[in-house]
Amino acid sequence: MTDGFDFRILNRDGLARRGELTTPHGVVQTPAFMPVGTRGAVKSITQRDLEDLDAEIILGNTYHLYLKPGDGLIARCGGLHRFIGWNRPILTDSGGYQVYSLAAMRRIHEEGAEFRSHIDGSLHMLTPERAADIQAQLGSDIAMVLDECVASPAGPEPAREAMERSVRWARRARTRHLQLRHDPASAPDVAVTNPGQAQFGIVQGGISPGLRTESVQATVELAFEAYAIGGLSVGEPVDVMYEVVAHTAPLLPDGRPRYLMGTGMPDDLFECVAHGVDLFDCVLPTRNARNGQLLTRRGPLVIKNARYAEDVSPPDPECSCYTCRHFSRAYLRHLFIAGEMTAATLNSLHNLHFYLDTMRRIREAIVFGSFEKLRQEFRQTFSRRPQY
Amino acid sequence: MTDGFDFRILNRDGLARRGELTTPHGVVQTPAFMPVGTRGAVKSITQRDLEDLDAEIILGNTYHLYLKPGDGLIARCGGLHRFIGWNRPILTDSGGYQVYSLAAMRRIHEEGAEFRSHIDGSLHMLTPERAADIQAQLGSDIAMVLDECVASPAGPEPAREAMERSVRWARRARTRHLQLRHDPASAPDVAVTNPGQAQFGIVQGGISPGLRTESVQATVELAFEAYAIGGLSVGEPVDVMYEVVAHTAPLLPDGRPRYLMGTGMPDDLFECVAHGVDLFDCVLPTRNARNGQLLTRRGPLVIKNARYAEDVSPPDPECSCYTCRHFSRAYLRHLFIAGEMTAATLNSLHNLHFYLDTMRRIREAIVFGSFEKLRQEFRQTFSRRPQY
Repeated sequence: MTDGFDFRILNRDGLARRGELTTPHGVVQTPAFMPVGTRGAVKSITQRDLEDLDAEIILGNTYHLYLKPGDGLIARCGGLHRFIGWNRPILTDSGGYQVYSLAAMRRIHEEGAEFRSHIDGSLHMLTPERAADIQAQLGSDIAMVLDECVASPAGPEPAREAMERSVRWARRARTRHLQLRHDPASAPDVAVTNPGQAQFGIVQGGISPGLRTESVQATVELAFEAYAIGGLSVGEPVDVMYEVVAHTAPLLPDGRPRYLMGTGMPDDLFECVAHGVDLFDCVLPTRNARNGQLLTRRGPLVIKNARYAEDVSPPDPECSCYTCRHFSRAYLRHLFIAGEMTAATLNSLHNLHFYLDTMRRIREAIVFGSFEKLRQEFRQTFSRRPQY
Repeated sequence: MTDGFDFRILNRDGLARRGELTTPHGVVQTPAFMPVGTRGAVKSITQRDLEDLDAEIILGNTYHLYLKPGDGLIARCGGLHRFIGWNRPILTDSGGYQVYSLAAMRRIHEEGAEFRSHIDGSLHMLTPERAADIQAQLGSDIAMVLDECVASPAGPEPAREAMERSVRWARRARTRHLQLRHDPASAPDVAVTNPGQAQFGIVQGGISPGLRTESVQATVELAFEAYAIGGLSVGEPVDVMYEVVAHTAPLLPDGRPRYLMGTGMPDDLFECVAHGVDLFDCVLPTRNARNGQLLTRRGPLVIKNARYAEDVSPPDPECSCYTCRHFSRAYLRHLFIAGEMTAATLNSLHNLHFYLDTMRRIREAIVFGSFEKLRQEFRQTFSRRPQY
């Protein structure tokens, strides 16, 4: 553990855990949802909005920040926290997922992932060491190891190969991270902007329980501060995702936070907390907001629908967010159809409030031993199909 | 005067006036700048931001709101204030300027302005009566009469014709407005959503002092609640604009607010307050913000410039706005170049703060009899050319 990093479990309810994650930039109440601040900004809202929403941690994308404005520039500006004016915890991913999903070209070598920038086609090589260096320069509170993502469904062989390579990469990433932590002078080209940075390993293995078990064992051996479940929400059916989480999460060290990467819909949060997951991130609340979809306890509301043209009721009558307290469906529909940027802002404020409020309710329920009841309630009222 | 409308001059300093404008939705301290909420939203910021900025009045564009979502819909939703969730004063223009500047086709008849929508090419007829009806349905606190705008430079004949037609239109607009105010039952098709709405006349006459004098006399005869100077900031040199304002403003009734439409740059505010103008509106602070131009006491700062890439100082070290208190030039440059919507938001918050703060300083200076000193100071430090 780094000096600044700690995790305490305060309450349990079944496999669900109510915890407190300490980082160099403050404490995160878990289970927690991390809004995604792709390029140093959560799209269409400001840092002040995030504070008002009581977001305790956000995620930054290493791939994007590395390409623009560059980790060197951010380090010279004092690290990511100072650069973006956000003093609470930040987790950065390794860049591996965006190399897989965004890059113009990707070639996996044992050395690392070679790719071309989606912006200008320039050629780059992301190695486990380089991913650790970039994140050290960004100075996030939690860095992730570089892993190899494969599309779903992947056959057993590609899944095994990617899992095994991810383990080898994780070992190299850990070595480099510990070198930067304990002997920064040995890497004079890397400006470590947050000496208390923790590093999480990532479990891969596709949808195979056997591969997942192997991956857990090999990754936990490397003694990271904590562990993530990667390679899910990449196209597999949701029930399969739940099964993999149900299998994998309990194998991870009980006393360390568990992070399910890139998930998901609101009902996913309940199902995966039930299996012992502590951290989530997803672009869904902000991306869907920009596409005019508002999420509520009953399900999605598609704001452009003609039936809302003169509907003066709030988007979600049960919601206490700024948007729902002040604006009508008719107004939000007008803004969305007119293409006003404010539509994205107001919808994002609502969706993030909904996610963060859902996590608050989950944490409270765990404390009171009523998580299972809340989960059943949510299941009965929430549908993924537009409900309004 | 309507019941809800009043104007009191509290202090004078030369021709500059420090006043208080009372409307059905509250009081506006003048001289005042009105942020432009084109389609029911000030672009890229929220109503909460406007309240935090202490904007006391905003402007809505009748042309845009009439086309989308329609004044009928807004009336059925309770009027513009309720529709957009803004409880402070609103001024609406007549739509004439956008018909002149935006419409796909425009033909001026004595009856009114025939035009095609810039959105779908549909054919519309905006008459003085219709413009009054639309604004009655919107329920703004201040409605403007329909006038005919001409490009600058216009020859003496087109300028005279447009001025004289504007006077005839103003008479019809006033008649219709008073009918709606005193006998709404006689116009059952029009839903008057703000019975306390005031109506301002508009002085035209291009850059000819003689025409301006004639226009003032004929318009003031119609006994509006107050008067605007229209047809400026349409391409004429800024000195000519100042001359027309210097000539026209003092001709207007002393006890009524004077509104200079569509102006302008920060130095324009000082020059025109000096001639007795009380109200301003302009898209410049928000539009330039979206284009990456931040306005300061020294002049514009073009945020995309390479020299700001690693500049950790605030955009304007003298400014106390949210943006300048929390973010660096380097971060704002990154957001702008990355195309993040948050760039528009943060830049707009700064520019609007700068305009509204400038008006606060102007009001204070008038109270203390030091307006001329402030104006000279501003002149010496402010340049329209990028200063950073």
